[in-house]
Amino acid sequence: MKPKLIYLDYAAATPIDKHVREVMEPYFSDRFYNASALYLASRSISKDVEKARASIAAHLGARSAEIIFTAGGTEADNLAIQGVMSAHPGANLVVSAIEHHAVLRPAEHYQYRVAGVRPDGRLDLPSLEKLIDDQTVLVSVMYANNEIGTIQPIREISEFITRLRLSRQQRNIKLPLYLHTDACQAANYLDLHVSRLGVDLMTLNAGKIYGPKQCGALYVKAGTVLQPLILGGGQEHGLRSGTENVANIVGFAAALDLVQTDRQAEAARLTILRQHFAISLLAKLPSTVVNGSLKQRLPNNLHLTFLGQDNERLLMQLDERGILCAAGSACAASSEEPSHVLKAIGLSDREAQASLRFTIGRQTTLQDIDSTVMALVDILGRP
Amino acid sequence: MKPKLIYLDYAAATPIDKHVREVMEPYFSDRFYNASALYLASRSISKDVEKARASIAAHLGARSAEIIFTAGGTEADNLAIQGVMSAHPGANLVVSAIEHHAVLRPAEHYQYRVAGVRPDGRLDLPSLEKLIDDQTVLVSVMYANNEIGTIQPIREISEFITRLRLSRQQRNIKLPLYLHTDACQAANYLDLHVSRLGVDLMTLNAGKIYGPKQCGALYVKAGTVLQPLILGGGQEHGLRSGTENVANIVGFAAALDLVQTDRQAEAARLTILRQHFAISLLAKLPSTVVNGSLKQRLPNNLHLTFLGQDNERLLMQLDERGILCAAGSACAASSEEPSHVLKAIGLSDREAQASLRFTIGRQTTLQDIDSTVMALVDILGRP
Repeated sequence: MKPKLIYLDYAAATPIDKHVREVMEPYFSDRFYNASALYLASRSISKDVEKARASIAAHLGARSAEIIFTAGGTEADNLAIQGVMSAHPGANLVVSAIEHHAVLRPAEHYQYRVAGVRPDGRLDLPSLEKLIDDQTVLVSVMYANNEIGTIQPIREISEFITRLRLSRQQRNIKLPLYLHTDACQAANYLDLHVSRLGVDLMTLNAGKIYGPKQCGALYVKAGTVLQPLILGGGQEHGLRSGTENVANIVGFAAALDLVQTDRQAEAARLTILRQHFAISLLAKLPSTVVNGSLKQRLPNNLHLTFLGQDNERLLMQLDERGILCAAGSACAASSEEPSHVLKAIGLSDREAQASLRFTIGRQTTLQDIDSTVMALVDILGRP
Repeated sequence: MKPKLIYLDYAAATPIDKHVREVMEPYFSDRFYNASALYLASRSISKDVEKARASIAAHLGARSAEIIFTAGGTEADNLAIQGVMSAHPGANLVVSAIEHHAVLRPAEHYQYRVAGVRPDGRLDLPSLEKLIDDQTVLVSVMYANNEIGTIQPIREISEFITRLRLSRQQRNIKLPLYLHTDACQAANYLDLHVSRLGVDLMTLNAGKIYGPKQCGALYVKAGTVLQPLILGGGQEHGLRSGTENVANIVGFAAALDLVQTDRQAEAARLTILRQHFAISLLAKLPSTVVNGSLKQRLPNNLHLTFLGQDNERLLMQLDERGILCAAGSACAASSEEPSHVLKAIGLSDREAQASLRFTIGRQTTLQDIDSTVMALVDILGRP
């Protein structure tokens, strides 16, 4: 019998929830119709898509027509960045230094500026404010970071952007100024209400909230001007062509509903586990460093630097003990470069390469945490 | 009890095969890991992705590294068109008049030329040849049409293109000339061997071959220069970033394996059913017109014009009798425009709007065909 694995990489992938799978099941082989066909059986599928869209919109305090389904969070980020920038040639955008590559890589194709973060991983607001000028059309700051879990002050940023918009209006400058946030990691635990946050574009990812992979959405506030990436049959209000994956869409809606309904209780439970993890580990290995703000942080993230260690070796030693965690973000795991996020908060290459990310989730127990601390002490306590 | 529906819209969507679903199942909640993570459990998932890639490559006579997984056929078409054109600024492309919108819409963003088709739906080769000049970098001609089922002479086109390449070489012209084919509808019944066909880029779509929706691939011949659409973590050799949907990928490979292994027997069975459909219908409703070549045609497609009728009304009358078919392609079904494919083969707007597409498939029986003919006679035979 295989020993139970202790999975501590929930930021990289989540198992599909049992209820979500049940909701998806009928659309594979029974209700498999193309949602754009004209017969009743297909129209009924199309209604299910719209029900899912309305349910997701409700959690965001948005209108249904403002939700564009995409094939994953990376695609939604690309639609936000490339979509807005290609609709406003000559304009520039400002991104934070710790955005996901799904934001940074497309940004590099345009005039872009990078706002730094403070050593705790929080955006340096004065630095951001200095970078925005009258040619800026888009600001992209992620809601919560995928590596170090830091939560960004989206509301403060949006208040500042509102003031800039007013100033542009008074000076008769027509260029819009949009705020995009990548909420892929945030959706499990944080408030997603778009008008409370004050965002114009928000990325969601079903694959990180116990829903299906390669399924996501971009919230696009009514009136936001952007161009599609993928053209064709004109699905998703012309913003994402291609036959809809109805199973994924209804699964996504069910998954978001579960995490958002339960988010406060689950956040409280995970915060306790995470604190226990940090306290027990630091008691036994006091030279360990916790990266990123402990206050403005996702409840499920603990990011640690084990000074003098090699994180890949450590990851493998934990793996041998059945404990699964991450060195850097999974998406860039195969790259040899030290993490841009850790460099942005001031870690040296050596420190970055001595760091591991532990992200806990629904199946994590107190015993899992204790076993992990014991394993780390066992590995690192040796001479 | 609900009466059994007669589904005659296999070109729009196919149910997921039972075996394919079984193959996908473990990846939803058990083997759900991010394929880019570093622990063994994830590396084993990543091996499954590579096994699927190798299996698909084998059916194409291609190398594994030449298969790029995408989220559907539309995305793969966009990657081919936008990817090649943005890597060769200033160059032009030539497309056939009856391409899917997933090819036509992106083509419109570049210098593009449209090659006409003959009344039987087959490409007019001399017209194509005249349109290609020394600034042409890409020719896109679909393998088999999604509306009228016509099969295009891809081999002849590729032979002509090979001659043009040689001529460019002799004249020291460096611009490459690529041939792309959309094989989404062809994959069920035709040979996909890329070197026999002589194509550089080929689009596949799992959702049309009894596999999962929003899952596809682009075959990209080694050495072909193109840019990605979706940027980020660098998955799929940098050509399609985003966490892989492993369930879909392994399901896609299993689905392609099933249809390609069985394709000749199934094509023979469906050809008999389709011929029976056409003959019985024409015997009873002799004014019905069959559109598109009957010889160079997918075995599962029958496209008919019922002169003087309104196709949407007819579709609904069939729907009331439990018979599901299509007016135009599903992807453009919601549009009010008459089909560009039917216009290209010379049908008037009125004729186009009197036309229906019937596409049969794995579950179609002789009795289904007889019931459909009876229903059509019942509806249209009335005064």
